[in-house]
Amino acid sequence: MKAVCLMSGGMDSTTLAYVAKDMGYEILALHMNYGQRTQHKELACARRAAQTLDAVDFVEISLDYFTKFGMSSLTDMDIAVEEGTLGRADRPNTYVPFRNANLISIATSYCESRDGDAVFIGVQSGDHIGYPDCTPEFIAAMQNVIKIGTQTEKEIKLLTPFVSMNKTDILREGLRLGVPYEDTWSCYDTEDTACGVCSSCLSRMKAFADLGIEDPIPYANR
Amino acid sequence: MKAVCLMSGGMDSTTLAYVAKDMGYEILALHMNYGQRTQHKELACARRAAQTLDAVDFVEISLDYFTKFGMSSLTDMDIAVEEGTLGRADRPNTYVPFRNANLISIATSYCESRDGDAVFIGVQSGDHIGYPDCTPEFIAAMQNVIKIGTQTEKEIKLLTPFVSMNKTDILREGLRLGVPYEDTWSCYDTEDTACGVCSSCLSRMKAFADLGIEDPIPYANR
Repeated sequence: MKAVCLMSGGMDSTTLAYVAKDMGYEILALHMNYGQRTQHKELACARRAAQTLDAVDFVEISLDYFTKFGMSSLTDMDIAVEEGTLGRADRPNTYVPFRNANLISIATSYCESRDGDAVFIGVQSGDHIGYPDCTPEFIAAMQNVIKIGTQTEKEIKLLTPFVSMNKTDILREGLRLGVPYEDTWSCYDTEDTACGVCSSCLSRMKAFADLGIEDPIPYANR
Repeated sequence: MKAVCLMSGGMDSTTLAYVAKDMGYEILALHMNYGQRTQHKELACARRAAQTLDAVDFVEISLDYFTKFGMSSLTDMDIAVEEGTLGRADRPNTYVPFRNANLISIATSYCESRDGDAVFIGVQSGDHIGYPDCTPEFIAAMQNVIKIGTQTEKEIKLLTPFVSMNKTDILREGLRLGVPYEDTWSCYDTEDTACGVCSSCLSRMKAFADLGIEDPIPYANR
């Protein structure tokens, strides 16, 4: 069994690849940058995790076309990343329109090309507000599209084991599986030391605090 | 009203953009190359058509990641384009896995970023066999994903006015609208003169023959 794992280099998708491996899948690692601020750091983290997991393949692709559409602070360098709130804004300016449909479609093309069995993506409960392309309803609709729109006789499964979990649950699971969190990156804004104020940093910091564990990566505000 | 039109440079998508304009939409033109053999010719045709239609924007993006997945003769230069049959093969080697899910997802991201109202894609009845991502069922499933996965309050419509038409019907409609077919390209294999033997050439030639009209582009075998 082979599964495409979307590996962003963040703590969720890295943990997810460890879960896929633990379920018995060989890993087809797929890393995508989309012109975001922290792309080099994220690539380095994803590559290291894929090596540790003995991934059978590592494909890196550039989706810099998102920069041509604008609108998100992640990809438009003229818009500052807003400071996060743990409750999340209704319309976070880090929203990249319909991003997960793009990511899942690409992963499915890759999966079908390599005769794979499943696609894993690390959406989670904390993303549901403000990101309609992270909800269980969206994932079910994408699974339906995959079933109808692929040629392969095996049905490619779209697996989201974290969809009802929060970041603290994910971290707990990752610690059980021995995920090296020093080799993951979550900050939306900076690459050397994490900013500690964007929404992604805030939720990561909260997960470690919830479990009373020290986060091994450096933060600017410490 | 603004609509994203996927403009490949081929006769169907060019005709489709004329239909969208005729329906009152301003055109957000989106051209994608995916490392296919005839990409330069197709880009030139798409750009010319967009100019003629007074498109409000023309975005060209490269999806060369398909070449990293392999498997299709359109994007893998080690696989020859097979000669076509008008009935189409069950598994044409020009099949690019899940391609239309990728194209529609990108178009929807673009549409939402620019506050657009609709996405047009030129799937048609002749594509249903061998290309599961061209069927009405697939389009309905994608429309559902768009409805669920976008943030915008207006529902972005996925419009496929050609889905029950064949190429002859499309050509008839295009002639009514004055589409300049000399500026469209259909051949999968070559850029200067069309090969006349690939499946795309065969269906184009059949459409012109059905209407008893001379195709204005040059063919190698004439």
